[in-house]
Order: sequence, then structure tokens, then C-alpha cells
Amino acid sequence: MRKFDQQQIDQVLKKRFFLAQSAHIYGGISGLYDLGPPGLSIKTNILALWRKHFVLEEDMLEIETTTMLPYDVLKASGHVDKFCDILVFDEVTGDCFRADHLVEETLEKMSPTEEVIRDLQRVDCMTCQEIDAVISKYNIKSVLGNKLSKSQQFNLMFGTQIGYKGGQTMFLRPETAQGQFLNFKKLYEYNNEKLPFASASIGKSYRNEISPRSGLIRVREFDQAEIEHFVLPDEKKHPKFSSVKEIKLKFIQEDSSEEISLGEAVERKMVCNETIGYYIGRTALFLIEVGIDKELLRFRQHKKEEMAHYAKDCWDAEIYTSYGWIECVGIADRSCYDLKCHEDGSKVDLRCKRRLTNPKEVEEWILKLDKKEWGARLRDRFSTLIEMINGFSQEYIEKNISALDGNKNYLNVEFDGHGINVECSKEKKKIFVENVIPDVIEPSFGIGRILYALLEHSFYQREDLRPVLKLKPMIAPIQCAIGYLIYYNEFEEHILKIKRSLAENGLVVHVNERSCSIGRKYSSYDELGVPFFITFDPDFLKDSMVTIRERDTMNQIRVDVEKCPSIILEYIRGESKWN
Amino acid sequence: MRKFDQQQIDQVLKKRFFLAQSAHIYGGISGLYDLGPPGLSIKTNILALWRKHFVLEEDMLEIETTTMLPYDVLKASGHVDKFCDILVFDEVTGDCFRADHLVEETLEKMSPTEEVIRDLQRVDCMTCQEIDAVISKYNIKSVLGNKLSKSQQFNLMFGTQIGYKGGQTMFLRPETAQGQFLNFKKLYEYNNEKLPFASASIGKSYRNEISPRSGLIRVREFDQAEIEHFVLPDEKKHPKFSSVKEIKLKFIQEDSSEEISLGEAVERKMVCNETIGYYIGRTALFLIEVGIDKELLRFRQHKKEEMAHYAKDCWDAEIYTSYGWIECVGIADRSCYDLKCHEDGSKVDLRCKRRLTNPKEVEEWILKLDKKEWGARLRDRFSTLIEMINGFSQEYIEKNISALDGNKNYLNVEFDGHGINVECSKEKKKIFVENVIPDVIEPSFGIGRILYALLEHSFYQREDLRPVLKLKPMIAPIQCAIGYLIYYNEFEEHILKIKRSLAENGLVVHVNERSCSIGRKYSSYDELGVPFFITFDPDFLKDSMVTIRERDTMNQIRVDVEKCPSIILEYIRGESKWN
Repeated sequence: MRKFDQQQIDQVLKKRFFLAQSAHIYGGISGLYDLGPPGLSIKTNILALWRKHFVLEEDMLEIETTTMLPYDVLKASGHVDKFCDILVFDEVTGDCFRADHLVEETLEKMSPTEEVIRDLQRVDCMTCQEIDAVISKYNIKSVLGNKLSKSQQFNLMFGTQIGYKGGQTMFLRPETAQGQFLNFKKLYEYNNEKLPFASASIGKSYRNEISPRSGLIRVREFDQAEIEHFVLPDEKKHPKFSSVKEIKLKFIQEDSSEEISLGEAVERKMVCNETIGYYIGRTALFLIEVGIDKELLRFRQHKKEEMAHYAKDCWDAEIYTSYGWIECVGIADRSCYDLKCHEDGSKVDLRCKRRLTNPKEVEEWILKLDKKEWGARLRDRFSTLIEMINGFSQEYIEKNISALDGNKNYLNVEFDGHGINVECSKEKKKIFVENVIPDVIEPSFGIGRILYALLEHSFYQREDLRPVLKLKPMIAPIQCAIGYLIYYNEFEEHILKIKRSLAENGLVVHVNERSCSIGRKYSSYDELGVPFFITFDPDFLKDSMVTIRERDTMNQIRVDVEKCPSIILEYIRGESKWN
Repeated sequence: MRKFDQQQIDQVLKKRFFLAQSAHIYGGISGLYDLGPPGLSIKTNILALWRKHFVLEEDMLEIETTTMLPYDVLKASGHVDKFCDILVFDEVTGDCFRADHLVEETLEKMSPTEEVIRDLQRVDCMTCQEIDAVISKYNIKSVLGNKLSKSQQFNLMFGTQIGYKGGQTMFLRPETAQGQFLNFKKLYEYNNEKLPFASASIGKSYRNEISPRSGLIRVREFDQAEIEHFVLPDEKKHPKFSSVKEIKLKFIQEDSSEEISLGEAVERKMVCNETIGYYIGRTALFLIEVGIDKELLRFRQHKKEEMAHYAKDCWDAEIYTSYGWIECVGIADRSCYDLKCHEDGSKVDLRCKRRLTNPKEVEEWILKLDKKEWGARLRDRFSTLIEMINGFSQEYIEKNISALDGNKNYLNVEFDGHGINVECSKEKKKIFVENVIPDVIEPSFGIGRILYALLEHSFYQREDLRPVLKLKPMIAPIQCAIGYLIYYNEFEEHILKIKRSLAENGLVVHVNERSCSIGRKYSSYDELGVPFFITFDPDFLKDSMVTIRERDTMNQIRVDVEKCPSIILEYIRGESKWN
């Protein structure tokens, strides 16, 4: 397997301000990183490509939801109870450790008996009891050699409070997905009540990792780009699957590994449906277009124990880096779990309509709110109440109805501290559609991890050890630098012209004004991954020619200044080759 | 002044999912909004224009810093102590109110005596004591008519904790600016130690508003786009000022208002330097390019009492909306206040070098750390210690030095729980540069407010009351929709061709598959602000012609399908007029 010199890479990334530890002048906060100009530009370019490749080409509905979510939402989604790591403590110093990491590190150093191997495979999915049992079986100690406490769960969400003292408990979202589920009904309406469709969100998510250590791989605040593809459970064939079925990829299942086409993987039911298969293919194409080395990319299926109980299938796109194989994208069939949780939690109907082949007659509860009274009392909050009431599912009404006044039925609705009695009556109607909760297939991208893997894959050193980032032109932070040996006023208008002409095509040009040797200038831009450097020299005054130097071949050509922008554009668009 | 029908506008924005209250199926959280597909697209387009207009055209260094910041940073910046609202409480119900809002509402209803007017002007800047005095003077009650408590300060930052129990206190940042100040030294190095330069950041900021009410205007989580222009205090002339000096703008100072050119405003010292003047001009150009009505834009100078004590000058770009004049951009000369705070707080030298005309001889403290010992003990944290030590200012060393061991001087450095004694000695050296803290000029954009103001300015109703958003093509969420009266297979390849050809030019095309009348289709896209609609009808099979309809004129032209993309592109690029 290819080797990466992590120390060399990190040194360049730090020196050239691709990134910096957050609040570094105050000693830094582990697990929090700022992106400097080149790091941010590359991230912005990766996200622009993602938006083009997924949102625009697949007509997805992109939305942006708040990073703060109320307790009720994350209670319903299961995060309040289950989004936890298991911790153990050094009984002498009180230092705390992630139990799975500690057990893993110890077992990996032991002789690999069958029992050790089996325990190692299961360590990610163990309960507190199982962890305690393993710690006692192997007599595992803290890193300082002291006895360990009993293990305990630690929730990974950051909590805060909104409003004045005693206000609502809020959490920073652990994933952008929840915001998309909460808006499912609005998205469905926006899509003219047609299924399937996909929504997408790009944004920050947060996890309060305990002692994060692996640089950009394990951080507390990170960029996610997530897609939620809503589809009926029995309609998971994908109309565009044929466009990806020939793609050959490395698939890992349990301990077996094979390189086969996506078509075969779906046919053999390794990948459980075409929609997941389609997203695996599109993900691979995206990562390769970004610049990830295809040889260092594989798709690994979650083991039974690893998978959430509601998930039907889950594949991770793993990329090989100096930290080993790293999960960078997860593609999961989450079934109807999330929408069902929020239907139960919010009491709002989150179903979509499926046309019935034979219409049915049913009885349904109809709610009649005293609009005059509550309109006057609630004012601008009244429309929210109406929306809430219109959203109640039949199931919920049925369960909570009570007869207060003779034969009349009422539903008591809690709203803004009021207990509102809404009259209900049952009415017959003929239905032509039934309501079903769709399944959701979720491709979820960890953008920071993809960025870091890309930087490792792009890094190389020349024979004299000078570092280079061989980033693709459209991913590079700057597409073209312009410099001169000695400055002449005559250069100015031509520099501006090149800059303007490339900028019109969306390219970033950097004019270098440092006075240092041309060799140092080249190296400086090689470290930033800039593919082209245009040099003006005194001969320009005679022949209007400039030198373009390409980063990887280091070849230089002398061309008429007027042709400069088109030559660079043609190369970047792949319309011509450099030679 | 132009009137806006806020209710009509909000109804369209809600119905067409420009935005929705966050977690609305759980009753919603006031002050938190999600953006649906059209709202997010417009925001994305505004930010793309912002990045082009400021970051790229002015060669700014764009960075992205974490939204979570440690206590120490916000203590040093003054936010822990001063980023507060003053609250009062209803003594009977306990309801809490922003004191300034309550006083303002009461005084505005009173007859405007000189005293009332004076108090009204000062209410934004009053201390708790002054608020209490005003409440008692005018006998102000709560909205329920009850007596009010004594006022108290309430900090507007959201707090959380990082790591396990007893971990570090963190805050969600109240502005992106702080992350830029923390990285000043790295930015300065990245810029080859040259001044002036500007950094920029786009991202979320947070304020725990008490009872936010005004829709997108006053929210708890919002998008900021901030520029920090670092410049030496006596070098605030701007080389490009002449490019904006002819622009005429409405300037408001205290109670006077006049429309004059920026050149005159700087000449008369109304605007205190060219750099602020330049940013006022660039801001006006940006807002007008986005689509803000120039007649509804003005620049208001902060009154003495309104301005932070360290600020030298501050101008707000105010935009008129249904909520009145709203501050959407603040352009302030913050002097060297922020960097000085962080130099004091972090003990790290945040100065830059200014070449001396006459070199000086000085004595400086040189620190000598026992690298062998601490390298071994601190391992991967060692480089952070080195960085910290190299960053100490002479002033800080001088103040904290002590002689432990005979004549030797030591500096005790606290780091990760260790007390490290670092040997110091004074050495003579000749200096050619002196260290100074630069001033910073900050244009700060509230993107959500600009978005909302733009939507109001773009909204109109046709004679039959159908709503339209007259968004500029490059700001509209979709540039072109394509539909048909009856579907024929023959349309498909042409639809794909138009879509691909416009997509290559960065335009978003939406294919409409709803079966409804053409009139309803037009209205539906008018509400989204889509400038063009291309219709395929059965005649197409004979003549290959399609109809393009423009949103505002409602004029239709019939053109050859092949010419469709270029006609739309020419119009969007302003190369031809619609008629």
C-alpha cells in the first residue's frame, strides 16, 4: 500500500496556512480547526463540485436548516438516548478514555488468538456491560497503568439554552439529516407531491468527541453534505442505474474483498437495491473527479452488529490515508425509521400519498377549532396552531380523543401554555389514495475528511524533496499565478487583462509581488498546488511573449501574451494536453 | 415612502417554501428559520456575488473559523462582560422584556416634549441605572399593566461545554470577526508581511435574543459576511478611492440628511478616512447589484453614544423595509482595539513590522527553553509550546520575569498544567523595523437581512393581484423554466440540450412536469422570481420553434429552439434588451 509521510504533509499544511488549530494563540482547542485561505478555497471548490454533481445534475432540493435543534426533536430521533460513547476513567488520576479505543489498542498488541480477534471485531458495538467484561477478562489498565472505573455512557451532543434562564434546552445538531426530516412535508409539497425525490443540505454538524487526536479526521465541528432520497419501500429501482452499472469498485463484506461491477453487486444482492447502488456509483465518480486516488478507495458494508437496528443496508466509502482506511461517506438505507420517529414525536402526519388502484370508503375524524376565539387570543401565533392541528394524524386523534360534553367529542391540544379543546366529529369519505411513510436512502459526506484525504493523495516531493500538491486545476485554491523577474510599468495592463479574462471564467489568479528568485516563487506556488505560473521578463518589452510553467511537468512554454488565457483555459477544460 | 404589504409577502414566502420556522412540526422555535430551496438559492447567489465583488476583486484572504470559541477569547474581546441586553420583568407574571424596547414603545406613544425626544434618542445606549430611572420617571409598566422589576443585564451568547464534565466553557461566536483577529498573525505571514490587507469570513453567528419577533430581521442564528481590513493608523488613504468618489449617496448624521458624493463626504470629514469611504462605496455598489432599490438605501453615522468607546467612526447601511429602516451592513473603524485585547489576553505578540527610516539599537529579552527536557515530556504538544513562547511580547516578558537562580533570569510559563521555567537574557541588537498593532476597518454584512429586504423590494402584484418577484436573473433561484402543453417524446432531447447548454454557463433550469394550465405555470414561476419560461407546444413538431416568455413584461417571442440558450444568455448578461 502507498505510504504517506504524515509529518511532512502536516508541516506544509501548517506552514502555508491551509489550516490552524482554532484559538491557537490561546493554546488551541483540540478537535477544532480553522481553515486558512488555501484550505478554504479547496473546500469551497470541493463543495461547488458536490453541488454540481449531486444537487444540480440530479435536481435535488437543497435546503439549509438551523444548527440548533430543540430537545424534543433529538429525543424523538433517538440521539438524546443513543448518540453516546462509552467512557472509562483512570481510578487514580481521574483521566477519561474512550473505552473502545483503549480496548482496541490493548487487544491489537496481544497475540491474535481466535478469541482476541472475535472481541476486536465486536468492540465498536459493545454495551457498557460487555466493555466491563472485556476489561476484566484481559485485565486492561489505563495508559498510566492504573485500574479502570466501571464504564459509562457519555452523550456526544453539545447542549445549550435558548431564551432567558429556564428557557428551552437546545442541542447543536449531530447531523444535517434531522433538519431535512423535519421539513419533509414542505419538501414533498414543493415537489408537487411526487415521489421519489431527494433533498440535500450542506452545513456544520457537531460532536463532543472525547480527546480527539487525529487531526482533521476526528473533529468536534465539521462540514457535512447530506442527501436524503425519499422513496416508496417497493420502488427502489433507479431509472439512471444503467449509467453507473459498468463501474468496477472494490467491495468489502465481512472479511471478503472483491473488485466487481456495480451491476453485478446489485444482481448478486450484495448491494440491496439499485438506488443504493446508484449512489455508490455517483459517490465513486465524485470522489475520483475531486482527485481521490481510485486505487485507495473502497466500499465496505457495515456488519450486522455495526448497523443501526432500523437500517436495511449501509456502505461506507473508505479512503486510505496515513491514518489507515477512513470512512469518508456513508450510504445507508434508513428505512422509514426517522420520519416515523418524528411523526410519533411531533404528532404531525408525515405521510405521502400513494394512488389506490381501487378506491376505499373510510371514516375520518374532522377537527373544528373555534377560530374566532383563538384567533383573537393567539394573534400572530394562531397560524402556527392551525398548522399544528391540520397536521395531526388520524392515529393520534383516535388515541387522544375524549367526550367532554354529552355526545360531543373533543381533542385537548396543548399550545403555548393553553389547553385548547377542539371539537371532533367522524365523517365518512371515499379515498382514492392511501397515506404511507416513505423510506429514506442517505448518502452522507464528511467534507473535512475528503479534504484531508485529498491533500494526502495530492502530496508528493520532487527529487530535491521540495513538496508539491498535484491538485486538479478546478480544485486548486488558485488556478494561476503571475510574476516577474524585474517590474516594468508596461506589465501592468497585461497582468490586469489576463487576470480579468481568467476571472470571467471563474478562475482565481494571484499576482505575486514578492522579491525573491523565480525558483523560490515556483516552489512557493507548488506547495499551494497552483497548476500554472506566468512570468513576465524584460524580453517582453521586445516580443510581447511570456513564459507559462506547468506545475507537475515543470515544462515551460513561451507564448504570446494575448494567447495566455485561452491556452490555460483549454488545458484546464481538458481540451488540450500539456507537453 | 414606498409601502410594503408584509402580510402578502410573508404569505408567498411561506407558501413557496422560501423559508420555514425551524422545527415547525414541533411548534417551532422563534428566532430560528430554515431556508427552503428558493430561499437558499437566492442566499447562495447573494453570497457568490459578495465573494466575487469583495474577496476576488479585492484579493482578500478568505478564511473560515470555528463557530465555537473558548471563554478566554470572548473574555478578552469584551463579549463576556459587555455583549448584553438589559431586561426587566413583570413583577406579577415574571415575563421578561427587553428594557430598551419597552421604554421606546412607551415614549413613542407620549406627546413628544423635548425631554421625551432626548430620552428616546438615548434609550439604545442606557445603563441599567439609567433605564431604571427612566422607567420610574415615566411610570412605565409591563405590557400587562403590572409593575416592573429593577433591570438587569443578560448576556446574549449561547454557552456550552467541551469535553467531559468540568470541561472547558465555550460560546457560540457572536460575530465571525473574532476568528479573523485570532488568525491575524498567520494572515499577515500569508500576505508576505505586507500591510494593508483584508481578510474575510462568511459563516453563522449566534445571539440569544430575548423574544425575537421580526421574522428574518431579528434571529438567533444568522449568516454574516465580514471583512477585516488591517491597516496602519496613519495610512488610511485608499488607492482605489477615486473609483467610488463620484457615487452619490444619502448620508444621515444625527438629525441631518443630505445626498452628496462620497468624495465630498470624505473631503468634509463627515466620513473620517478614504478606506471607510471606499468600503461605503463598494457596499452601495454591491447592494444595488444584488437588487436593492437605491432609493431605499441610506448610510447613517452612529451617534457618539451609540459608538463603542474604541471606535473611531461607524456607518450603517440602512435599507427601508416594512419594518422601517433596518441596519444591514455596519462599516466601522475599530482602531487597534481588538488586536490589543487579544495581545493582552493571549500574551502573544500581534504586531506587524514597520520599516524605520533610521535604525535603532535596542536591548531585547531572548528566551532559552530546555528543548531536550520539554520535547520529551510534552511530545506532540511541544510545538504549540514553542509557538507560544516565540509569541511573547517584550512587554509581557519584562512584566513577568523573575530571578530565581543567582543572576539568571527566568520566565515562568503555565502550559497544560506544567509550570515551566524558561531562562531569559537581555541582548543588544540593532533594529530596522518597529512593531506596531494595525488598526482594523470592518465592513460587516447581515446576509439574512439583505435577503429579506431584497425579497420585499422585489415583490409586486399584477393588476389581477397575482404576486411576482422581480429578482435579477443571476440572483433568482432558477434562471429558466421549461414546460409543455402536451408532452411529446420528441421534446425530450431538446429539453436536455437547452438544460445542458444553460447549465454549462452556470444557470439553473427547472423542467416543469405538472399538468396544469400554462397560466398557472407562469404564475407559479413568477412567485419564485424565475425570469424566463420556455414552452414547447405541438407546433414544435412542424417548425422547431418554442415560445420564450419574460416575467416582468410578460412578452412572448417565438424562436428557433437552437437559438434559445444564446438568446437567454445574451439577455442575462445584459448584451441585449427584452422587447
